[in-house]
Amino acid sequence: MVSFLRIFSLRNLLVLSLALNVSLIWRVLYGKDSEAINGPSLDNKRKALRTDSMASEAQATQTTHLYMPSSSSSSSSVDSNSRDRVINLDHGDPTVYERYWKQTGDKSTILIPGWQSMSYFSDAGNLCWFLEPEFAKEIIRLHKIVGNAVTEDRYIVVGTGSTQLYQAVLYALSPPDAAEPLSVVSAAPYYSSYPLITDCLKSGLYKWAGDALSFNKEGPYIELVTSPNNPDGHARQSVVNKSGGILVHDLAYYWPQYSPIAAAADHDIMLFTVSKSTGHAGMRIGWALVKDEEVAKKMVKYVELNTIGVSKDSQLRAAKVLQVATDGCKYPTSKEGSLFDFAASIMEERWNLLRAAVRQSGLFTLPDFPPELCRFLNSSFAPRPAFAWLKCEAPIEDCEAFLRSNNILTRGGKHFGVGPQYVRISMLDRDENYDVFVERLSTIHRRQSMQVDETAE
Amino acid sequence: MVSFLRIFSLRNLLVLSLALNVSLIWRVLYGKDSEAINGPSLDNKRKALRTDSMASEAQATQTTHLYMPSSSSSSSSVDSNSRDRVINLDHGDPTVYERYWKQTGDKSTILIPGWQSMSYFSDAGNLCWFLEPEFAKEIIRLHKIVGNAVTEDRYIVVGTGSTQLYQAVLYALSPPDAAEPLSVVSAAPYYSSYPLITDCLKSGLYKWAGDALSFNKEGPYIELVTSPNNPDGHARQSVVNKSGGILVHDLAYYWPQYSPIAAAADHDIMLFTVSKSTGHAGMRIGWALVKDEEVAKKMVKYVELNTIGVSKDSQLRAAKVLQVATDGCKYPTSKEGSLFDFAASIMEERWNLLRAAVRQSGLFTLPDFPPELCRFLNSSFAPRPAFAWLKCEAPIEDCEAFLRSNNILTRGGKHFGVGPQYVRISMLDRDENYDVFVERLSTIHRRQSMQVDETAE
Repeated sequence: MVSFLRIFSLRNLLVLSLALNVSLIWRVLYGKDSEAINGPSLDNKRKALRTDSMASEAQATQTTHLYMPSSSSSSSSVDSNSRDRVINLDHGDPTVYERYWKQTGDKSTILIPGWQSMSYFSDAGNLCWFLEPEFAKEIIRLHKIVGNAVTEDRYIVVGTGSTQLYQAVLYALSPPDAAEPLSVVSAAPYYSSYPLITDCLKSGLYKWAGDALSFNKEGPYIELVTSPNNPDGHARQSVVNKSGGILVHDLAYYWPQYSPIAAAADHDIMLFTVSKSTGHAGMRIGWALVKDEEVAKKMVKYVELNTIGVSKDSQLRAAKVLQVATDGCKYPTSKEGSLFDFAASIMEERWNLLRAAVRQSGLFTLPDFPPELCRFLNSSFAPRPAFAWLKCEAPIEDCEAFLRSNNILTRGGKHFGVGPQYVRISMLDRDENYDVFVERLSTIHRRQSMQVDETAE
Repeated sequence: MVSFLRIFSLRNLLVLSLALNVSLIWRVLYGKDSEAINGPSLDNKRKALRTDSMASEAQATQTTHLYMPSSSSSSSSVDSNSRDRVINLDHGDPTVYERYWKQTGDKSTILIPGWQSMSYFSDAGNLCWFLEPEFAKEIIRLHKIVGNAVTEDRYIVVGTGSTQLYQAVLYALSPPDAAEPLSVVSAAPYYSSYPLITDCLKSGLYKWAGDALSFNKEGPYIELVTSPNNPDGHARQSVVNKSGGILVHDLAYYWPQYSPIAAAADHDIMLFTVSKSTGHAGMRIGWALVKDEEVAKKMVKYVELNTIGVSKDSQLRAAKVLQVATDGCKYPTSKEGSLFDFAASIMEERWNLLRAAVRQSGLFTLPDFPPELCRFLNSSFAPRPAFAWLKCEAPIEDCEAFLRSNNILTRGGKHFGVGPQYVRISMLDRDENYDVFVERLSTIHRRQSMQVDETAE
């Protein structure tokens, strides 16, 4: 048994080592270009501190750590001795994309004069009067080239991130004078923010009703279908088998870097966001494709009441980066290449590293995904989700606590409606953090897990 | 009586004519510069269509009209014959400020590369982790030089406009487990959006309880003090004389172009917005100055749940325009001069024009304001609010309908908790619209009012 474990461990070490080499070569090729074009990185100018004070983290302790400059990103920054360094992968902060956008140089830069975009109004002829026409145009262009969603005969509603649009949908779908709040459900594990956002104001219009799989209340309801799912990455369909339900499709992760694009999604209400498609979380821009005019109108009314429209500056900037993303698909031989090729390569590499580390450690398991044909990338591959849904195997009972004791911050299963043996881990952080993470994960020994569990008891 | 009216009318015509001349000279001086620096205006590039589909306009009919290019702004564009042209002064769209920002040229321009501001996080060390440090710095600089608010020992919370911050305040001040919703009141006439926003989700945390002057319910409550007040422009203080109340000061209009700055406001919770200070409504940026740490923390939590932070792009742009505004105060002899001098001159001119038109017509009245010393502009003057609170005198009963019959769109008194004899009129529109408005108002004859009322009966 001991010798078997030793052989198994050596083989895994080899896989891990090879994967790191591929990663290193790849980054040297890309990283150099980026540095030459853009000079010192953003991170050299700013102290990119982070906390874990964001949504869904009720008990947030203000653990901060200093990022290393991303320009120094290479496996040489992987220092397994610095176990004190806290790696925060709780949030899906998509900083991995910075490298691609540096490569695009001036193409993706925008300039806004002080006198521009002063009015509340963007496009008065449009049902969504605060939607910048240029942004609307680029949304359609991008969906058309990627083929991930039908845009014909749809209203586009822009939001301050898809988070605001989620609330706009709830407002739009809830009857104003119903006797009781409309039930909102999603199959567990579900996105941890859904229950918090739904119930934060104790609305009389709608109410979080938990796991869609066990939902059996009579009457109308909203079912949220997140596909690929946050946190576990699986493709999803509606699970409630009842009449009176309205489906809302959150397709934030239905992009070719994460998932094979099997067909253009064609649902009544579909939500997207730049945070996960191009990586621009700081813009706070999302969009909804909505079939029904009255639903779209009510969503617009919500955004109007909530924030009187959506930042024009960010919409203009979003239009620019979507334009560059689409152009990159059309001309993949350009200097910077295609955003989706770039991100797909990184995600594949990271998932390979993670699976190797998980095998190496022997303490965890990950979901398996069957390969499927992607019509956009014209190849078959298994999904490589934006989050890893990691399970700690027995005897570890609380996976989040266990990883925290190793200075790895993740989000525990209970936030997603399941047990504490699961955690969600962001796969979108900068290289230097991701590399430390997989390296550390691969070297956590079973002995450590026993110690933690003994202490906890 | 007839001859008295004729004399009165002639004198008023003279005042109106002189005021228009002053306006014309002033604009020729400023307008030329702006055109030379910036070339063709924004409005030549875009069809600046507008609707009246915004908040508080329940019965919104989609009346649209085409703006004329603002570069042609002079009284020559006042064509009293074009009575079919709809002038929409329902919203406080601050497009009057475009002219100033054109004068500032490159000073107020920002450039954002595609790779910048991608993370959700702005300043992890700060309680408000999504607040751009540069913006925070410029907020403090501006308040210090204008002297309109105390910033010491305050937390700054940024919001997607002050509208979002208003909701953040309600969330922060409402006990999560109270038996019934907290009452929210404000003295009528109050901002028309307050009741709509407060009640739109039928929150169990808080509830609109109407006019503060007639509020007599026992228990805790929130009183909104808007000063200068929207819609009527009066300086305000709390009116509810009970214990258990928490005051929220909406100081969106406490800037020297609208009101003498008598002293630095020093309240527990103060709300501001760029929409009305610099005129950048399209940015959707507001800020709160908050004394209590726990209240600030809960406000941050609300913005986190509602939109996961605030557009970084707009915050960076807001930092830039605030910086230019402050520099303009420090160096008022610069080419573009001071924003507040510019806006104060326009507001004074517009109020003079409006009062002359109102006298000329004989059908309306306006609030009177006593002059007060402004410590910032170092002179005494009467307030010149961002909205005119116009009253139609008898026999006109519905002032909004009466003005609409003259193709002037305003917001009627009932939206503000008072009677239909009042309307709110934006004073911040572009010159070519404002000029048509005052010209048309001055020539509405009593005979017309009789006709309308007869038709309505």
